Amino acid sequence: RARTRAFLAHRHFQRFIVGVIVINAGTLGLETFPPVVGSHGHLLTAIDHVALYIFAAELLAKVYAERSAFVRDPWNIFDTLIVAIAFVPATGGLSVLRSLRILRALRLLSVVPSLRRVVSALLRAMPGMSSIVVLLSLVLYVAAVMATKLYGQTAPDRFGSLPTSLFTLYQTMTGDDWGNIAREVMTRHPSAWIFFTIFILVCTFVILNLFMAVVVSAMDD
Amino acid sequence: RARTRAFLAHRHFQRFIVGVIVINAGTLGLETFPPVVGSHGHLLTAIDHVALYIFAAELLAKVYAERSAFVRDPWNIFDTLIVAIAFVPATGGLSVLRSLRILRALRLLSVVPSLRRVVSALLRAMPGMSSIVVLLSLVLYVAAVMATKLYGQTAPDRFGSLPTSLFTLYQTMTGDDWGNIAREVMTRHPSAWIFFTIFILVCTFVILNLFMAVVVSAMDD
Amino acid sequence: RARTRAFLAHRHFQRFIVGVIVINAGTLGLETFPPVVGSHGHLLTAIDHVALYIFAAELLAKVYAERSAFVRDPWNIFDTLIVAIAFVPATGGLSVLRSLRILRALRLLSVVPSLRRVVSALLRAMPGMSSIVVLLSLVLYVAAVMATKLYGQTAPDRFGSLPTSLFTLYQTMTGDDWGNIAREVMTRHPSAWIFFTIFILVCTFVILNLFMAVVVSAMDD
Amino acid sequence: RARTRAFLAHRHFQRFIVGVIVINAGTLGLETFPPVVGSHGHLLTAIDHVALYIFAAELLAKVYAERSAFVRDPWNIFDTLIVAIAFVPATGGLSVLRSLRILRALRLLSVVPSLRRVVSALLRAMPGMSSIVVLLSLVLYVAAVMATKLYGQTAPDRFGSLPTSLFTLYQTMTGDDWGNIAREVMTRHPSAWIFFTIFILVCTFVILNLFMAVVVSAMDD
Ligand code: NA
Ligand code: NA
Repeated sequence: RARTRAFLAHRHFQRFIVGVIVINAGTLGLETFPPVVGSHGHLLTAIDHVALYIFAAELLAKVYAERSAFVRDPWNIFDTLIVAIAFVPATGGLSVLRSLRILRALRLLSVVPSLRRVVSALLRAMPGMSSIVVLLSLVLYVAAVMATKLYGQTAPDRFGSLPTSLFTLYQTMTGDDWGNIAREVMTRHPSAWIFFTIFILVCTFVILNLFMAVVVSAMDD
Repeated sequence: RARTRAFLAHRHFQRFIVGVIVINAGTLGLETFPPVVGSHGHLLTAIDHVALYIFAAELLAKVYAERSAFVRDPWNIFDTLIVAIAFVPATGGLSVLRSLRILRALRLLSVVPSLRRVVSALLRAMPGMSSIVVLLSLVLYVAAVMATKLYGQTAPDRFGSLPTSLFTLYQTMTGDDWGNIAREVMTRHPSAWIFFTIFILVCTFVILNLFMAVVVSAMDD
Repeated sequence: RARTRAFLAHRHFQRFIVGVIVINAGTLGLETFPPVVGSHGHLLTAIDHVALYIFAAELLAKVYAERSAFVRDPWNIFDTLIVAIAFVPATGGLSVLRSLRILRALRLLSVVPSLRRVVSALLRAMPGMSSIVVLLSLVLYVAAVMATKLYGQTAPDRFGSLPTSLFTLYQTMTGDDWGNIAREVMTRHPSAWIFFTIFILVCTFVILNLFMAVVVSAMDD
Repeated sequence: RARTRAFLAHRHFQRFIVGVIVINAGTLGLETFPPVVGSHGHLLTAIDHVALYIFAAELLAKVYAERSAFVRDPWNIFDTLIVAIAFVPATGGLSVLRSLRILRALRLLSVVPSLRRVVSALLRAMPGMSSIVVLLSLVLYVAAVMATKLYGQTAPDRFGSLPTSLFTLYQTMTGDDWGNIAREVMTRHPSAWIFFTIFILVCTFVILNLFMAVVVSAMDD
């Protein structure tokens, strides 16, 4: 088992895996070009299968080498999930599952050390943001319930149901096209500008402070 | 009174109140789905009433326990206002008042300690920003008066009156669709690009510095 | 002269001037409402004239009190220019000059100490940004000349002349509606995405660093 | 050679070169105005040729003065490339090459010391960002492959091929018009909001951290 572990951790093997991931990401990208699929479809499928078997073999070797320590590393869980998707029987119209195969390219995040470090840093920044994210979600939910009740019948395309309102207000939060949405509602509810102005001010202010939380936590590091 | 105070502050009671808020927020959200209202409307109304009575009872108990100290805590004023909305007689078409009931979900901000801390931090950041917010409002007002005078007759939908101009320039300030608004005006006033370019540069510069004020004050904490 | 100076600097006189500025800003705002102008037009004009004479008298008193020191304070130049606009004979269609009267509201910036401090801080941040602003202007100019040559005939509304291109690329720089502009050009020049992608990446990168220059200079203060 | 070097580095010669660059940038800008080309076209072309010969002579003098040290300074490579473009024979419809002549204005970046310093600072900030830029590109690629497979047939204008999807998702990443793009897809794939919401959240989060990396590296300087 020590030899398996040494083999898996070897620089050459690591580079080989990176190469397989990059080639597999390339073939999955080429699958979106119909002429390429027409002329070399079988080759792309073959490469895809070979890559998948290599990833599966690597994972099995890792399980053998690390035993119960395997499940303690979240990166291993991540790799296993991404490879496992390919083995779910994609019956019927499950084109969604087939399209998820490209997620394998994200294995680069766990294999390339510099990317692994960046992602770890991103994940470490998350707990410091959780309270503000909860606050923002609460503001979004409250605003969506209010907008559905007030403007649901005036602008059913925008605020017809709670999920529609949540989407529209999320869009408003990102500042995209909110002026036209507000104007549409204001033709019937002239005072709707109060709702939109307060909503945008509150969101901007909270996001500004979310940003600050990240800056300050980055300083402390 | 000491026993009432201890009861109100007890961990289990706090969790019970959080639970009531979450359930109430859920039922108010479900009220926006017509089929659910059709089949379980009475149940939703009943839960809403029970939650309201629990909140009212909690507030009365707090008044009894804290007496005059009650009004000194701004969170208590916040909770009282939110609960009081429900008791305003909603006669006629006051659907706005009914839609405000969802604001009760914001009681989470005063009950959950981590959210309470985040909101307190946000409020503490406000005084440091007040001068810049006044400056931004002044810029917005001056620009809106000018735009109404100059472009009011050319583009009445955008700058027909002072409130309309304020709305349009607030939208411009957030960067939403300002290019199309400016182009519309420029068909008649080719030099309008000067107005818009200066307005956006000034706003961007002031907001950049607003941002800096928040960063620096966060550093000092 | 010492007495004039003391009088001008007196707290009560300062508050009086702030009051006149705020009232004057209000009447200039009310002038944008046709019904108010119809019923109280003469009153608004009268208040406007009185305010103007007060400002002129204040400036003359300041010149008398400070003599040659008057011109050394840039705030005095600012105040003089703003008041002087009103005395330019507005013959013919010079509605632009009339609309500039509202700039008098900006006198608040020189009179209210907290606003004065904010504006001074903003101005102090400017020299540190000048090189990056020159760089950004250079990028904008180079891109506008290229876009006019390449896409001027394809999309004359967007890139028909150098000023038009400068406006469109300034809009692109703020991220407003650039996707549709690029798509319009790409129907004839499929490789235009290269131009737009590089332009946006360069601008984002330079602005990010402009931002950093401001942060770092704010830290040093 | 020492005299040539002293001559090239002389303050007056530097100013002369800056002047030639600015005048040349001006004439290239004037070339976009058809009436000016009509009346003074020959003059503009003559100035352009003279400027080009001055730049070429300056470069040759520099090669003579610095010999092999010439190629070690990346700014010299930059200057040579920009001047060399003009000597590529622009046969046929190579209007792109002609439009690239304006890139000569970027020579200001290498000649004016303050701009040179700003650009150097920008370039120094790049290595610290490289891992996050790779991460962002990977997210963009994975999302584009998925979107092409899932929504390619529903919205061929937006996601019909991999390059189209990359463009649309790059636009989405900048927050431009993404609400309308998502709504278009959602008419056929109601669950597409999941894809767009996750994509925007991930991009915002990564860019936020890209920003942080720049802030922290700027602090360390
Ligand atoms: Na936008
Ligand atoms: Na937009």
